[in-house]
Amino acid sequence: MPKVIYDCDPGHDDAVALLLAWGNPDIELLGVTTVAGNQTLEKVTNNARALARVAGISGVPFAAGADRPLLGPQLIPEEIHGDSGLDGPQLPAAGVELDSRHAVNLIADLVREHAPGEITLVPTGALTNIALFARLYPELIERVAGITLMGGGHHSGNMTPAAEFNILADPEAARIVFEAAWPITMVGLDVTHQVLAVPERLQQLQGVGTDVSQFVAELIEFFGQAYMQERGYPGPPMHDPLAMAAVADPSVLRTVAADVYVETQGDYARGQTIVDFRTTWDDGEPARLGVRDAQEGAPRHRVAMDVDREKFWTLLVDALEHIGNTNFA
Amino acid sequence: MPKVIYDCDPGHDDAVALLLAWGNPDIELLGVTTVAGNQTLEKVTNNARALARVAGISGVPFAAGADRPLLGPQLIPEEIHGDSGLDGPQLPAAGVELDSRHAVNLIADLVREHAPGEITLVPTGALTNIALFARLYPELIERVAGITLMGGGHHSGNMTPAAEFNILADPEAARIVFEAAWPITMVGLDVTHQVLAVPERLQQLQGVGTDVSQFVAELIEFFGQAYMQERGYPGPPMHDPLAMAAVADPSVLRTVAADVYVETQGDYARGQTIVDFRTTWDDGEPARLGVRDAQEGAPRHRVAMDVDREKFWTLLVDALEHIGNTNFA
Amino acid sequence: MPKVIYDCDPGHDDAVALLLAWGNPDIELLGVTTVAGNQTLEKVTNNARALARVAGISGVPFAAGADRPLLGPQLIPEEIHGDSGLDGPQLPAAGVELDSRHAVNLIADLVREHAPGEITLVPTGALTNIALFARLYPELIERVAGITLMGGGHHSGNMTPAAEFNILADPEAARIVFEAAWPITMVGLDVTHQVLAVPERLQQLQGVGTDVSQFVAELIEFFGQAYMQERGYPGPPMHDPLAMAAVADPSVLRTVAADVYVETQGDYARGQTIVDFRTTWDDGEPARLGVRDAQEGAPRHRVAMDVDREKFWTLLVDALEHIGNTNFA
Amino acid sequence: MPKVIYDCDPGHDDAVALLLAWGNPDIELLGVTTVAGNQTLEKVTNNARALARVAGISGVPFAAGADRPLLGPQLIPEEIHGDSGLDGPQLPAAGVELDSRHAVNLIADLVREHAPGEITLVPTGALTNIALFARLYPELIERVAGITLMGGGHHSGNMTPAAEFNILADPEAARIVFEAAWPITMVGLDVTHQVLAVPERLQQLQGVGTDVSQFVAELIEFFGQAYMQERGYPGPPMHDPLAMAAVADPSVLRTVAADVYVETQGDYARGQTIVDFRTTWDDGEPARLGVRDAQEGAPRHRVAMDVDREKFWTLLVDALEHIGNTNFA
Repeated sequence: MPKVIYDCDPGHDDAVALLLAWGNPDIELLGVTTVAGNQTLEKVTNNARALARVAGISGVPFAAGADRPLLGPQLIPEEIHGDSGLDGPQLPAAGVELDSRHAVNLIADLVREHAPGEITLVPTGALTNIALFARLYPELIERVAGITLMGGGHHSGNMTPAAEFNILADPEAARIVFEAAWPITMVGLDVTHQVLAVPERLQQLQGVGTDVSQFVAELIEFFGQAYMQERGYPGPPMHDPLAMAAVADPSVLRTVAADVYVETQGDYARGQTIVDFRTTWDDGEPARLGVRDAQEGAPRHRVAMDVDREKFWTLLVDALEHIGNTNFA
Repeated sequence: MPKVIYDCDPGHDDAVALLLAWGNPDIELLGVTTVAGNQTLEKVTNNARALARVAGISGVPFAAGADRPLLGPQLIPEEIHGDSGLDGPQLPAAGVELDSRHAVNLIADLVREHAPGEITLVPTGALTNIALFARLYPELIERVAGITLMGGGHHSGNMTPAAEFNILADPEAARIVFEAAWPITMVGLDVTHQVLAVPERLQQLQGVGTDVSQFVAELIEFFGQAYMQERGYPGPPMHDPLAMAAVADPSVLRTVAADVYVETQGDYARGQTIVDFRTTWDDGEPARLGVRDAQEGAPRHRVAMDVDREKFWTLLVDALEHIGNTNFA
Repeated sequence: MPKVIYDCDPGHDDAVALLLAWGNPDIELLGVTTVAGNQTLEKVTNNARALARVAGISGVPFAAGADRPLLGPQLIPEEIHGDSGLDGPQLPAAGVELDSRHAVNLIADLVREHAPGEITLVPTGALTNIALFARLYPELIERVAGITLMGGGHHSGNMTPAAEFNILADPEAARIVFEAAWPITMVGLDVTHQVLAVPERLQQLQGVGTDVSQFVAELIEFFGQAYMQERGYPGPPMHDPLAMAAVADPSVLRTVAADVYVETQGDYARGQTIVDFRTTWDDGEPARLGVRDAQEGAPRHRVAMDVDREKFWTLLVDALEHIGNTNFA
Repeated sequence: MPKVIYDCDPGHDDAVALLLAWGNPDIELLGVTTVAGNQTLEKVTNNARALARVAGISGVPFAAGADRPLLGPQLIPEEIHGDSGLDGPQLPAAGVELDSRHAVNLIADLVREHAPGEITLVPTGALTNIALFARLYPELIERVAGITLMGGGHHSGNMTPAAEFNILADPEAARIVFEAAWPITMVGLDVTHQVLAVPERLQQLQGVGTDVSQFVAELIEFFGQAYMQERGYPGPPMHDPLAMAAVADPSVLRTVAADVYVETQGDYARGQTIVDFRTTWDDGEPARLGVRDAQEGAPRHRVAMDVDREKFWTLLVDALEHIGNTNFA
């Protein structure tokens, strides 16, 4: 049963991911940490605390982290998530007190308190907190089971032709994270753009019939309008929930092993995750001839290529049913 | 009937492309220019002149161009093309005198002498000559019908995870060429890796039964051994001939219109051609919503996505049959 | 009376700076933190703890910090500081226990425990710890009185034509530090290369006649041989002690106010501190016309331009005399 | 007697440099080429042709060159040179026909027609033409005696903290030029900012009492007002004339031999000329210990450090007197 620390910047899809984590019986949520991204740190932290009340989360520490990227300017995608970072539904008051520790120190304490290999980090925002953790506590890196993150992609970016938002929001942090010696599963746009909350899916969620599912539906409606207006999508991509779903049930994704490099420079490539696909050609069969020596062993990164849509939506519906009504309002 | 100036660095696949150009009845070859790339300028120019004898080319000016890239270091892929740049078959003596003009000035003269929109440039090496032409004679850019080039790709590089050889060989030149106001069709690794000269194809070529087809077979055998050894490919990709084939018959390729950017910087992305695919999602349907204003009109670049293999091999066989025996030896 | 946290990577000149800090009656040493730089974190931390015994330091927490730079590769100048980082004299056993806190958290605790504006940070190594402090605890930046650092310079680098070692060792950290909103005095090569421990100066130090002054002399002898051999200098520069001396008595330096930018990219400029000198011309008079609006106010950075050598050496001799014999061996 | 090809973008100080070249009895002016810079190519070429009439130049080919930099965006300093590039005095009609050759081909022809080592190139604009020449005709590089250029500097930039205008106007071209194997004397801001046309100097020029000297005075008045307004200078720097003066009489400058690198990348350093000064320290004596191996020999670049102001102004006054009245109006 995966023990998860969820590092997020809610954010509509972060909100859904948090509900999926809390409602999924196979995930033990150890902590929630926030990072500036979809909105300012203050706003996303307030959102996370309000979501704790919506979901009925208790007994889980919430801690605030980095208020800006390591090096570059802060990007705030207000056109997607609105002024609050979670525009759409009415938010309740905070459901948890904020832990007094910095997010990075909370992560370190949790990793130290658990056995090596027990904890999976699930970051679905800029990777600033995770990078700071890696640089402050390098001795704890090997105690982390792995990282399943939402970000990047190989075919296309969304913010620029090459870069996805979470990586572009802090490319230096992303590079630090991808270079550190933990296993990483990259859940990027290649798969999250395959899981759009089109109207039929929205109805499926609403069918759960709880106050929480109604809240989710309102989130998705706002998110969907933004995506339709900005990018012409028929439904908003379920970016962050897909990463969480892959922790609950890895068979949601088909992944391939490949080295991933984060470009921090360039006129066009800053924020790109470059996947070394020189192993495949023509018929699509993977191989690793000439480029990578057999003795190097398999790459440390896995890249999500395809998604089992039905499985994803079932996981999400099940989680909402498991949560039931919370009477949060 | 396309009038072509072929800018090349023979190179095994350049050699095959030159034969395809000369043997194809729909292409009028106006000039051949050389550029340092697969080997030094001296070697590739000698190779081009020897190929003129192999193919029986006459009445076409051959001129030497740039002996190094604009800015970066010269890369020579000796592991692929050998010490001569054209290892394998025995080369005959030169079949043409070298034009006294610099390649860039020959191109300018030819473009000036022909009507606007008559000439297609087909570069299949580093883009140094074409970039120098664009900067020296900007007033001639609009007289060029278009450029069909072998280079780049969007899914993967060959020299690095992101960069293909011809672009990496002179990224600054490539950026100049892609930014200039002529239409460009990019024939990149996405399609050239779909056209491998596997043994059955080699037999098909040998079946032509001429001294020239035997010469081509020997080229491909050397090239194929290099590709097998270096990269594990079952046959060598027909990079450059595919670009020439697409000039002879554009239906050889399926292309999409998209903006292409050449990255010149970065730790990993230097030499990458970044295609803006933000127009497509989920079902693969192209669209251009949100990202590109309708008033901007269509992108100036076309990216080759798929290839009609049979059509390509037929074009090549036909060209060799059209050339017949040249008794070059 | 300046309260100082000394962030260092001993390092021969760091060692002398620590002695100067401890022996100077105007400096209150609140803490010593270490960072990978002149040698690995483990070695420089061991060195710092041994130096505590040499100097007779007690009641001051020592904490270890970052074991590598934020982003770039670790540079270790073994040719200058030797295998131990402090080659030359015999080192005694550690004189202090290591604080259990990370250096960054120790700095944060000290800054919180003191009144705003009381603490000066004196980093004389890579700026990794200080950058991590700025990103983890941005709310504490305004509580720091200022930073006086050894690093950079405007006329020339030492590791490259443009870059000085401490900045090049972690350019991203340096950029973070220079961009944060605290006052910075940059003590760079422009001044530290004016203070060479030539033989007469060495004799002056030995004239103190204590076991500690003898230890310093042995440090400087090794350091001087390295500088003579590597760079042909008649004596080793007193880089780090000069920064500490400027905290004890700012009149040791002449400084000018100017904006300083840290370049993190480039083929030649990575690690350079670029000073905006567009305020001065012809007769050398500083001005700020045209380039900087009067309403912007003065630059936040001060750049050391000249040094009062006699004052520096007097401060160092006085500090050693104040320490006296410590019977550390 | 130096034979000079003057590559310029007039430009107020270019105009004065052209007059100095034409009026100086020790310079034989072989050709004048233009490059986009202080204004568009069209405007600076028109200006050059008008200046031919002002100076009474005949028998010298004038050719137009590059209309934009190799790679970066075109910068036009209209705040310094005005809308025409030569605002201030009334310009006469063109005094020469434009040569039909491209500037780069004119330079190549002149270099071929003269003996090796006879021709000095004097570029005082963006280095685009010279870089194109180096890449098109690498075999001619060794026939050039040397390059004396106005551009760069080591202490400070003018357009940015690090970059001078001519280098920043085309950093890639500058890098190509500095890396090519010809001797270069860099006349940068370090010396040109020492030669300001303050009112007394303006009077000295006006004292020549010709129509040409009056024209020069009007140029300098406009130029001086721009410099006073934009940068607060008491007089405009005689950038380009100083480079030409150094060709007429090298003793106008004190130079040192040092390697110069042109940075093309970076957030702050793009366009900077980085001089390797690791040879000097403390007492200012040059040396080359440790950094540069004796067997490498002396650096190929010379950097101007100081100027003999009186000698410069005497050269300029003499040139104007030598030209006398041209009755150009």
